[in-house]
Amino acid sequence: MKRRHWLAAAAAAPIACATSARAVADSAAAPAPLPSPLPALMGTGDLGVVVQRARGALSLVNTSQPRVLAEITGLGDLSHASVVFSRDTRFAYVFGRDGALTQVDLLTARVVQRVQQAGNSIGGAISADGTLVAAQNYTPGGVKVFDAQTLTLRADLPAEFEPGRLSRVVGLVDLPGRRFAYSLFDADAIWIADCSDLARPRVTRLDGIGRQPYDALVTPDGRHYIAGLFGEDGLACVDLWADKPVVRRILGGYGKGQAALPVYKMPHLRGWAVAGRHAYLPAIGRHEVLVVDTESWQEVGRIPVAGQPVFVMARPDGRQVWVNFALPDYDRVQVIDTPSRQVVATLQPGKAILHMEFTPRGEAVWLSARDDNRVSVIDTRSLATTATLAVDAPSGIFFTSRAHRVGF
Amino acid sequence: MKRRHWLAAAAAAPIACATSARAVADSAAAPAPLPSPLPALMGTGDLGVVVQRARGALSLVNTSQPRVLAEITGLGDLSHASVVFSRDTRFAYVFGRDGALTQVDLLTARVVQRVQQAGNSIGGAISADGTLVAAQNYTPGGVKVFDAQTLTLRADLPAEFEPGRLSRVVGLVDLPGRRFAYSLFDADAIWIADCSDLARPRVTRLDGIGRQPYDALVTPDGRHYIAGLFGEDGLACVDLWADKPVVRRILGGYGKGQAALPVYKMPHLRGWAVAGRHAYLPAIGRHEVLVVDTESWQEVGRIPVAGQPVFVMARPDGRQVWVNFALPDYDRVQVIDTPSRQVVATLQPGKAILHMEFTPRGEAVWLSARDDNRVSVIDTRSLATTATLAVDAPSGIFFTSRAHRVGF
Repeated sequence: MKRRHWLAAAAAAPIACATSARAVADSAAAPAPLPSPLPALMGTGDLGVVVQRARGALSLVNTSQPRVLAEITGLGDLSHASVVFSRDTRFAYVFGRDGALTQVDLLTARVVQRVQQAGNSIGGAISADGTLVAAQNYTPGGVKVFDAQTLTLRADLPAEFEPGRLSRVVGLVDLPGRRFAYSLFDADAIWIADCSDLARPRVTRLDGIGRQPYDALVTPDGRHYIAGLFGEDGLACVDLWADKPVVRRILGGYGKGQAALPVYKMPHLRGWAVAGRHAYLPAIGRHEVLVVDTESWQEVGRIPVAGQPVFVMARPDGRQVWVNFALPDYDRVQVIDTPSRQVVATLQPGKAILHMEFTPRGEAVWLSARDDNRVSVIDTRSLATTATLAVDAPSGIFFTSRAHRVGF
Repeated sequence: MKRRHWLAAAAAAPIACATSARAVADSAAAPAPLPSPLPALMGTGDLGVVVQRARGALSLVNTSQPRVLAEITGLGDLSHASVVFSRDTRFAYVFGRDGALTQVDLLTARVVQRVQQAGNSIGGAISADGTLVAAQNYTPGGVKVFDAQTLTLRADLPAEFEPGRLSRVVGLVDLPGRRFAYSLFDADAIWIADCSDLARPRVTRLDGIGRQPYDALVTPDGRHYIAGLFGEDGLACVDLWADKPVVRRILGGYGKGQAALPVYKMPHLRGWAVAGRHAYLPAIGRHEVLVVDTESWQEVGRIPVAGQPVFVMARPDGRQVWVNFALPDYDRVQVIDTPSRQVVATLQPGKAILHMEFTPRGEAVWLSARDDNRVSVIDTRSLATTATLAVDAPSGIFFTSRAHRVGF
């Protein structure tokens, strides 16, 4: 469907995951991995989870070996699930599509507690000090803030942009100091919530940011919040270090004069898009990655790629940027060398590559090949596949080192 | 003593720690903290250690509470000790001044193993993949590389710059891909060792880099290696992404035309000096912090500070830079606001502030006040002291999140 048609459909349906048409029954028949007992003493710095989207389960993984350690089941609808980690990297907080927030203990591979906090949810964040977990919700539209230890509701922040009208919330990120920034898809707005006083959370509203923000990122320094716009070519940028933050439009009309392509899957934005001084951003519906200077926020280049980019992720050192794609090109992954801004490799690591995650220092990247029921581990220097793990219909991959970074 | 006089003394004595004249017997009388039993299950992401320099011990700390969890003794001479962490953040590797390398299990607060690997050592590093621990030694001058699990010697790299002549080694850092870079104080050289094939480690030598490199850093992206020079005004810079890395001089003659001050303590360099696009570097023997553009490597400013800077450390988000000082100004700490490049606060958190460490996302900083036998925890936004911990003669503070960063 064409972009504007996709938009019309999106008004009724969830925003993301247009490609997730795979039947649950189909993959539920695949054998689960058989984990060995967990060690009595285990560091948590090299752990992670892989979402088994169809089965509502997580694979607990270790990135040093690498291997699957255990399976955690009973997590509900994990399509488009995302995960954040506690400050001690012991607990995972899983935001399910069905509005459930689940706390999982990685040391015991068990669900600790689970709250049904909304009807339709699309991810979350954890505060810089690790005390607050926030969920962004479509239904009812808003943000709910929970105590990270007890999952007690500490603040309810409906995205009520007009009396009685709630917006779906996207692009929620943590900011320094118990603050969160998020975007209102239906209200063309960015809101910043300061939860340092939980009895009186303060919400700063920035309106008229551009049509239909669909996702956002905060730069790794916590300074710039960038929301992608679905309703027009361009992005909205806020300098959060300013005394009075204002929104400016960046990359306005980047697709101007070119025929719109059908949009098969919404791209994702996250802090990993920043490599050195530049951000690498997916152009919606275009076979291009946009390169932006993070000081001037001007476009300084665009890189042709093999399909519509979904995740555009910088290796932690910024030397490479890896890109995966919407269908029909989602069996490919491309590697961009950042100094030359050239695609230097095109890999075919499996069927339906849904997600990628770099190890903390970037020596390897893990890729989910959903339709091959496989996670591949690739050496980022040699590009050799160094390990494969059997995981049922894997989608998101999340490593505990996210706990120590801004915007993850 | 004057700078050149200090240098003459340094030729016989260890390079660093000119201020460490405090008697061991004096502080050994102070009461040790009384830790409670360690929990059976514990995440390792919010742990750290504080060096008790006089007693040859570590305090195991938790940064979420914050508190002292346990004490680990029997570590030998910990003056100028430094620490790196295993990839799973379970183990600390402690490099003692006496040439011992000790592996400590944070989950049991016990020494796992200990090797006497040199006569006089000055720190170390761990490879990006976590498999190799490297120690930089004064006596005998060189680098030794150990298996991180067994502490078996895997590679011995003497710093033999002329037949039969070994240099003291400083500024050892990890690079991507089982590589290490380090500087040869006595040979005016930077060497890069590639240990990907341990049977045949390859060492690339860069000579004539400038007189007496005394410490070094690698930028957080692993791209630039910067060695400070003690024998002249200026630093040596290598672009490690170049096909054939070469050394260029940066900040040459930064003290030109100004009278040299006596140098009371050598400053330290580490990756934490980089905030956004700029590096903040201590000017040796001067009451100044130099601001350098990390693209052009030109000086773009200098900031007057309260004394001779020792550690110049960017908060993880780069919004602030904290500076401590050599005696007689080592009871003070200054906070620089990076957008304005102004000192915005001068704190007096205790006597003999030897070290600082930011929590992973920078909401707090921990400071060692050696002569107050106290570690202070300061909120980096409000600058309020939120906790104090009794620690005997604390010096270096090291948090496990270092495991996941390049150059720590």
